[in-house]
Amino acid sequence: MDQTQQPALRWKQEAGQLAATYITDGMIVGLGTGSTATEAIKAIGMRVRAGLRITAVSTSDRSSALAGQLGIPLVELDSVLSIDVTIDGADEIDPASFILIKGLGGALLREKLIALATKMEIIVADDSKLVRTLGAHAPVPVEVEMFGWRHTQTRLEQLGCRPVLRPGTPGADARTAPYITDNGHYILDCHFGLIQDPVGLAHAIKSLSGVVEHGLFIGLAHRLVIAGPGGIRVWDRPAPLDNLPLPQA
Amino acid sequence: MDQTQQPALRWKQEAGQLAATYITDGMIVGLGTGSTATEAIKAIGMRVRAGLRITAVSTSDRSSALAGQLGIPLVELDSVLSIDVTIDGADEIDPASFILIKGLGGALLREKLIALATKMEIIVADDSKLVRTLGAHAPVPVEVEMFGWRHTQTRLEQLGCRPVLRPGTPGADARTAPYITDNGHYILDCHFGLIQDPVGLAHAIKSLSGVVEHGLFIGLAHRLVIAGPGGIRVWDRPAPLDNLPLPQA
Repeated sequence: MDQTQQPALRWKQEAGQLAATYITDGMIVGLGTGSTATEAIKAIGMRVRAGLRITAVSTSDRSSALAGQLGIPLVELDSVLSIDVTIDGADEIDPASFILIKGLGGALLREKLIALATKMEIIVADDSKLVRTLGAHAPVPVEVEMFGWRHTQTRLEQLGCRPVLRPGTPGADARTAPYITDNGHYILDCHFGLIQDPVGLAHAIKSLSGVVEHGLFIGLAHRLVIAGPGGIRVWDRPAPLDNLPLPQA
Repeated sequence: MDQTQQPALRWKQEAGQLAATYITDGMIVGLGTGSTATEAIKAIGMRVRAGLRITAVSTSDRSSALAGQLGIPLVELDSVLSIDVTIDGADEIDPASFILIKGLGGALLREKLIALATKMEIIVADDSKLVRTLGAHAPVPVEVEMFGWRHTQTRLEQLGCRPVLRPGTPGADARTAPYITDNGHYILDCHFGLIQDPVGLAHAIKSLSGVVEHGLFIGLAHRLVIAGPGGIRVWDRPAPLDNLPLPQA
């Protein structure tokens, strides 16, 4: 299999393991969802076994289960005022704007609510996720109310996309066995093609009645940790939104 | 009891009964929620018993139950392309702009999704609901995701209101027994005081992550049927949004 199409698990591990080194004693840590975030959770779990003392908040029932197995102590988002560091993945990353598409793993709503509460959101990915223009490969996942979802689908179509109800399992018939999020909603994967104005689009989608949340993450990522055949690159979002160091790679 | 504070049930009945006369054979009808909408449903039920043939879509489990008892045939919103006439109530009505506050009955999300699909949205109310400026008496109900709702509450506060978690029953402790909507969400009743810019506010609220929907209904009401001590008044929203006749009263 071509590594540029299906990057090695090793890169996901490298990115996840490096990101886990940013966690320090006493932190409240957000745990992401997806294959690369899972590698970060495993690396955090090893550090907890070695004595690291943290409290974690999870973006999905799946990641909560993994954290539980690894002995990472979990609390609810509503029991903390803010989160120090969250490590999460992404489906597409525009490194120029730090805007992401997330939600192919289905956890976009909790991922976004946790990112909004996070001081340092670290996105881990293999370099196949980098794009020059968002929408190159991924649709924008949109979480919608079950009630009247077909009417919401029509409103999304009017924004210029093809919205496809996500099936519960790949290949299943979405009409009889749709995917249901942890929050009890459906997901419409909205195929827009290349997205020239992600900020305007995000706004237009969220304004629609029936839409709960969408997978465009704007102004939320602070640091990108990207692994590939050339090694690991780390980018920090420039000031003024925060006082992070300049790009290290 | 002062009738201007607690209007007689008779006015709600008069408004509901008049609105029910707008229903004709073969229509798809939206059924609202709340005390005045209930009077309309009862009047529609009597007409169905007398031979009126309609199909109805309901805005709440409560109204569905009542319709079932009255023999009104129900279908799902997603099984129809549009609704001919919906009769629903409101908590505050600005008759100059036709903007409403709805949701004190807890059904605002389904009410709005049904209103959006409706060709003729008729609002029935007693005249205590008329206000010169929205927010005079009612808070704006905002339906929010349970996950991380305290963070959503903080974001709503930053819009300049006091957001209060609605209790499951009046007087109950909302923290231990919150109200849960038919869609599995909480409601924060947001006390803004007088609302000078409802359009801008609606936009700001819906843009927030964690917000599912809010009770400001803008551009959705076509006809107001208002009953009070001076009789029943009917106003239709002026063109150009639709081709309704001019105000009749």
